[in-house]
Amino acid sequence: MAPPTPRLVVPIDVKKSPWEQKLPIHNRWHPHIPPVAEVTEGEVFRVEIGPLRVLDTKGVPAKPGDLLVVEICNLGPLLGNEWGFTATLDRDNGGGFLTDHFPCATKAIWYFEGIYAYSPNIPGVRFPGLTHPGVVGTAPSMELLQTWNEREKKLVETDIRSVKLSEVVHQRPVAHLPNTRNCLLGKVKEGTPEWERIANEAARTIPGRENGGNCDIKNLSTGSKVYLPVFVEGANLSTGDMHFSQGDGEITFCGAIEMSGFLELKCEIIRGGMKEYLTPMGPTHLHVNPIFEIGPVEPRFSEWLVFEGISVDEEGRQHFLDATLAFKRAVLNAIDYLSKFGYSKEQVYILLSCCPCEGRISGIVDTPNALATLAIPISIFDQDIRPKSGKVPAGPQVLKRLPDVLKSTYDGDLPITQNPTKDI
Amino acid sequence: MAPPTPRLVVPIDVKKSPWEQKLPIHNRWHPHIPPVAEVTEGEVFRVEIGPLRVLDTKGVPAKPGDLLVVEICNLGPLLGNEWGFTATLDRDNGGGFLTDHFPCATKAIWYFEGIYAYSPNIPGVRFPGLTHPGVVGTAPSMELLQTWNEREKKLVETDIRSVKLSEVVHQRPVAHLPNTRNCLLGKVKEGTPEWERIANEAARTIPGRENGGNCDIKNLSTGSKVYLPVFVEGANLSTGDMHFSQGDGEITFCGAIEMSGFLELKCEIIRGGMKEYLTPMGPTHLHVNPIFEIGPVEPRFSEWLVFEGISVDEEGRQHFLDATLAFKRAVLNAIDYLSKFGYSKEQVYILLSCCPCEGRISGIVDTPNALATLAIPISIFDQDIRPKSGKVPAGPQVLKRLPDVLKSTYDGDLPITQNPTKDI
Amino acid sequence: MAPPTPRLVVPIDVKKSPWEQKLPIHNRWHPHIPPVAEVTEGEVFRVEIGPLRVLDTKGVPAKPGDLLVVEICNLGPLLGNEWGFTATLDRDNGGGFLTDHFPCATKAIWYFEGIYAYSPNIPGVRFPGLTHPGVVGTAPSMELLQTWNEREKKLVETDIRSVKLSEVVHQRPVAHLPNTRNCLLGKVKEGTPEWERIANEAARTIPGRENGGNCDIKNLSTGSKVYLPVFVEGANLSTGDMHFSQGDGEITFCGAIEMSGFLELKCEIIRGGMKEYLTPMGPTHLHVNPIFEIGPVEPRFSEWLVFEGISVDEEGRQHFLDATLAFKRAVLNAIDYLSKFGYSKEQVYILLSCCPCEGRISGIVDTPNALATLAIPISIFDQDIRPKSGKVPAGPQVLKRLPDVLKSTYDGDLPITQNPTKDI
Amino acid sequence: MAPPTPRLVVPIDVKKSPWEQKLPIHNRWHPHIPPVAEVTEGEVFRVEIGPLRVLDTKGVPAKPGDLLVVEICNLGPLLGNEWGFTATLDRDNGGGFLTDHFPCATKAIWYFEGIYAYSPNIPGVRFPGLTHPGVVGTAPSMELLQTWNEREKKLVETDIRSVKLSEVVHQRPVAHLPNTRNCLLGKVKEGTPEWERIANEAARTIPGRENGGNCDIKNLSTGSKVYLPVFVEGANLSTGDMHFSQGDGEITFCGAIEMSGFLELKCEIIRGGMKEYLTPMGPTHLHVNPIFEIGPVEPRFSEWLVFEGISVDEEGRQHFLDATLAFKRAVLNAIDYLSKFGYSKEQVYILLSCCPCEGRISGIVDTPNALATLAIPISIFDQDIRPKSGKVPAGPQVLKRLPDVLKSTYDGDLPITQNPTKDI
Repeated sequence: MAPPTPRLVVPIDVKKSPWEQKLPIHNRWHPHIPPVAEVTEGEVFRVEIGPLRVLDTKGVPAKPGDLLVVEICNLGPLLGNEWGFTATLDRDNGGGFLTDHFPCATKAIWYFEGIYAYSPNIPGVRFPGLTHPGVVGTAPSMELLQTWNEREKKLVETDIRSVKLSEVVHQRPVAHLPNTRNCLLGKVKEGTPEWERIANEAARTIPGRENGGNCDIKNLSTGSKVYLPVFVEGANLSTGDMHFSQGDGEITFCGAIEMSGFLELKCEIIRGGMKEYLTPMGPTHLHVNPIFEIGPVEPRFSEWLVFEGISVDEEGRQHFLDATLAFKRAVLNAIDYLSKFGYSKEQVYILLSCCPCEGRISGIVDTPNALATLAIPISIFDQDIRPKSGKVPAGPQVLKRLPDVLKSTYDGDLPITQNPTKDI
Repeated sequence: MAPPTPRLVVPIDVKKSPWEQKLPIHNRWHPHIPPVAEVTEGEVFRVEIGPLRVLDTKGVPAKPGDLLVVEICNLGPLLGNEWGFTATLDRDNGGGFLTDHFPCATKAIWYFEGIYAYSPNIPGVRFPGLTHPGVVGTAPSMELLQTWNEREKKLVETDIRSVKLSEVVHQRPVAHLPNTRNCLLGKVKEGTPEWERIANEAARTIPGRENGGNCDIKNLSTGSKVYLPVFVEGANLSTGDMHFSQGDGEITFCGAIEMSGFLELKCEIIRGGMKEYLTPMGPTHLHVNPIFEIGPVEPRFSEWLVFEGISVDEEGRQHFLDATLAFKRAVLNAIDYLSKFGYSKEQVYILLSCCPCEGRISGIVDTPNALATLAIPISIFDQDIRPKSGKVPAGPQVLKRLPDVLKSTYDGDLPITQNPTKDI
Repeated sequence: MAPPTPRLVVPIDVKKSPWEQKLPIHNRWHPHIPPVAEVTEGEVFRVEIGPLRVLDTKGVPAKPGDLLVVEICNLGPLLGNEWGFTATLDRDNGGGFLTDHFPCATKAIWYFEGIYAYSPNIPGVRFPGLTHPGVVGTAPSMELLQTWNEREKKLVETDIRSVKLSEVVHQRPVAHLPNTRNCLLGKVKEGTPEWERIANEAARTIPGRENGGNCDIKNLSTGSKVYLPVFVEGANLSTGDMHFSQGDGEITFCGAIEMSGFLELKCEIIRGGMKEYLTPMGPTHLHVNPIFEIGPVEPRFSEWLVFEGISVDEEGRQHFLDATLAFKRAVLNAIDYLSKFGYSKEQVYILLSCCPCEGRISGIVDTPNALATLAIPISIFDQDIRPKSGKVPAGPQVLKRLPDVLKSTYDGDLPITQNPTKDI
Repeated sequence: MAPPTPRLVVPIDVKKSPWEQKLPIHNRWHPHIPPVAEVTEGEVFRVEIGPLRVLDTKGVPAKPGDLLVVEICNLGPLLGNEWGFTATLDRDNGGGFLTDHFPCATKAIWYFEGIYAYSPNIPGVRFPGLTHPGVVGTAPSMELLQTWNEREKKLVETDIRSVKLSEVVHQRPVAHLPNTRNCLLGKVKEGTPEWERIANEAARTIPGRENGGNCDIKNLSTGSKVYLPVFVEGANLSTGDMHFSQGDGEITFCGAIEMSGFLELKCEIIRGGMKEYLTPMGPTHLHVNPIFEIGPVEPRFSEWLVFEGISVDEEGRQHFLDATLAFKRAVLNAIDYLSKFGYSKEQVYILLSCCPCEGRISGIVDTPNALATLAIPISIFDQDIRPKSGKVPAGPQVLKRLPDVLKSTYDGDLPITQNPTKDI
């Protein structure tokens, strides 16, 4: 019987640039980007990044209409690369959830001690990571791709922010349409007409969509299963954007602890599963979303301090059942609170973006207020952060100033990490 | 030493109407509604409903600027009243989160077997409750009350729905301003000029606000602690709206398992805690939100099936980082999925409103899509609801039609349950 | 449809003596003790104490060879009796697991604040209870009863303690055989020949046996199910000995937090289930043990300090794979350790007997040492009990001396609590 | 700032024999076995096996009387070696906990899919591992070593089994005294007089003792901390015997899933901590036991089926509070039960030895019965193993016969795995 040692189907060389890897990567979605490797159903394989073609055990590829079950058997940092970083982006360069409060680019470096992360930039906290890939998705069909491009184009054209009372996110571009700049298309040879065509059609990798994609769901960790719809023959599974840890929302945008890592995956095919289990909606009947199961191994926390937010903005204006705003308010309340314990607000903003905190939509019907909550595990701090009688303890003397990050041009693609040095 | 048997400070007679109770109830917030009972700091007391004045152990009441720590020591159904109900409201009568999909009024009756609830209206599910009060709050000061009234009036006047592309919630009134209809003001004698004045100023109890209020946070269960800001002398703590169980969001609006119940509470005062721990915002510097700690006793589930939603609406239109819409889409995806297992969509809508499911804001920065998830514990079903190869099993023959509920006029107050019979 | 309000089938009046209750109790096991109430399969009923006859829904009673599934739907203290106690017994009066170290009778009173217990006798600790009945069992058949009496008689005659090197338990009687003293037999009229006969045959209730009985399994709490073998027609289910909380082992003997309480139960019958699921052993083929399922609601602790013990006794003698001794050593190590934080050893002995600590058989094969562990949840203490650099903090000034308990004659029956006053 | 990439201080070459490794291993405890590497306090290092000298950051070694805090930052299988095995040993070759029932040598091979293990020898089960080192310990001082040798010698001489009524373990050698056979002493050169002396004094590695050692505590997994007493200068920490997974008790003796693996550790020193935190007992005042803290990452199971055992043996004889026997009975009850679902008893014996089941001492005071429980997570099976009405389902057709293992001479040392092929 064949032993199950995971086959390394996509290696990575962290010393080389992303575009110099042996197996070329892609940072756009398109059905014509060819796969770089093939795997069979039931096989456990090891991957860092790149699109994969999934066959069943008889060599018959997954077909449109199937569900591709991807089990995350294992994952972690690459040996010798036990570190990562979290950053806020400049307001002119992509920004984040709280850009109107924190307009500057900063970063924190995180070092890993096995399952734990700590940062010299944010002293006094240490937490176990709930490691996961930010991206897991299948290739879209041409029809689905066109749907994406059309609806996002319409959004850019109308730019709803001009009429939206909530100005939560008012300085950020609403969407990025296809273009050729910084485009990476795997094995498609750059400069050819084919490359030009695909680049001008291919969707950006930033948002999660019907194919999964950059979902940034922090619970997609060890032992979990994703049920992905299949839109093209072979499925063309892609994964990447490894996060050592992330809070719900990933609020600073470059907001998880970004790292180099590996994944051990196993695929199964549910023939015809899309029709059987998903209900397409919308005009094209392609509007579906993946399903997943949470795995059995997650850090256990038993004590949580929870912050609320309602849909009243910082200027005191009432908004109607706006969960985005309510969550923004919960996060701001948490930042203000924790900054009393010796941290700068920038430090807390980055911490809440990457530590295992939970963002909940607690109430969405009690007009006019949506109510969101942010739950923070108490034990990640080395001081007791609960309210109590008397003065807030001064807290450990912490570094108030985070290092700046180099400005780069953010443009709608998943950042190809030009790894900042791990030294602070 | 005095034994800690909880003193019953507010009794309820479930056979009488709410307005016939010995200690009169209130369904509005106002600083001039007098308390009906007094408790001292550290005392464990028992309550069903009504405003309370909190003294510290020296008889000095809680003061504005303090934090009132309310510990929920115990809670549950009233003995002999081990049942509750969940309802959807008619679109012309308040509606709910998915009123555009489910415009009719229906209900499900739930019977309790100790910690478990089951419903003859939704066969094949049974789950332990995470019982909690939907309402826990302190009285607002006049200044805070005026702030509420002004901002909600402005919302009603502008009615942002006319310009909001997301039509998630388009058929519901945006807010309810003070009026005298159905107003209950506790000991304030109805018909007096005082009653008139207060009724025309007092805020509705439906939404959660700075004082806590109708937060509908499902994790405020046994052993948890709420840190409430104090705005008036004595705090004037109110609680009510007992829920045997609720899902995050309480999506059908009358959406938890509503029941008659009791609470055993204990209060402590953190002197000056508002200033020490909360950061007021907005023009009046009164815009704060409560904090809470989750208790150690919650039902443990280890297997969850999770549904995603992104901010693209049912017509395929792209919206910008709209978490409300993303959550709506996640809920709709879950309803469609579960209806394949033998349930009507109405049944699933009610089930997801009241079973212990978790609604998360998973991603809020990957423009243009907000990504929300709804996690459902697998073990509450008596069939395996995971996707698998082959046809979806037919499922147990379930009742497809829920009973109608009587129409009542919803008007912005927390419903005073005219208890429907517990028979189906 | 009939509502499920639990029917109170066995009431208790805590102001009366056990033998004065309306429905008489029993403190021995015998097939001829008649039931005091009848319940039907699937019915949720409420009980405090006493034997019950279980019928199925068609009036056909459970039969020998069936399995009786008892679900614990709910349980708790009786309203107005929110207190309990834990005691050590005098070495001449039953003793406990560590009688050779703690020969005197002491007690601690515990007051309940909802799910939490605290004791004026052991300051600085507070914990949520994992409430459960110490006794749940079915009536034995005559054949099984005779088996018990014979094997326990043989033990008394040989008194293995004289040859056992381990002197863990050397001062305690090895077993108590049937006799008439203090015997309570429910409806069997005292003084009659029938009463005499049964009393001289009936087994003591102290140990757990094939019928369940006084299992003292701390995890038999809300939502759990017990699968009990049925030995007599009707099953004659008995339950009692309510514990607000207990540690694994219940080491002080009167070692849980003993209290007055209620149970809400539901019974189902698995016809012929004994043969189908249990494998009788031994000469009479009656040697089986119950099975149970743990419920979904237990206090969650995420941080535990764990103590080890190996099978080397206090005099340094090596014993062979003796798990009893290894557990004794783990408990002694924990007592010594915790006494450094300001407690007397007697206080810790009582605390570890009743707080939710876990006793594990970690290693049972590494000759010659059995290895047992005792895991203690860290958060029950109001000080940090982890080892750290520097001196052990002095700890809060604690009462070192526990109150004495009245001596009573312990004689092999489950103590019929002559409730000590709840005042300290 | 120096990055925390773990330094590999002890490499292993799995293709070579244990005695051919670059850094020589040891399979005995002795203070004069020199360390093979040095680490400093606070450094994260990587190790497979071997004794280590622990320095603090100023180069001052740990001293006798200190506590050495060893944090298990990470651990897992070696890349490319994702498999392990579990075996029962022949009764003439060491046997196990149930040798009187299962006298033959058999084995099961386990393959790992990330965090999951499955075995072609035991179909229908798959579980996440709670990976841990079976051995973690410090070197004994000469005085402690002599204490061990004396007490174990006395046990061998008296051989208490001849008088022990419980014959649970009657065919196994009671202990193994020092000898030179198969002795590995690290850097001590074999054949020298020094080697002879040490070999004749050094203690076997099989049992856990005061120094930790072969504790086989399954919860010593990722994120946990062990507080080890220091008996010699530098502590001379050793670790090894990696287990992918183990049940409480490790009942088959070679009973965990044994594998090649790595550990990432971090050490801290609590100066003088032995005196501060541990209470030596016994004549030499060296009888102490380590303490540990459980880490935050463990597989979460919410449904358990639990088996009980009491201290009545298979022949129906009553024993007195014998937890070893009670646990044996609980295990036998579980084996009988599970064998009804299509497994051979040998398969279940091996499964319960290595899957994450929990062995508890539930009651240790209810004379004459000790009561032990074995809790098995239900979700590791692909069929529902709960009792229910009707016949036990036939179960998947499973292989009834396990492969034999080669006989080797077991002699009291931790087996130096001559790796069986990973093929079945």
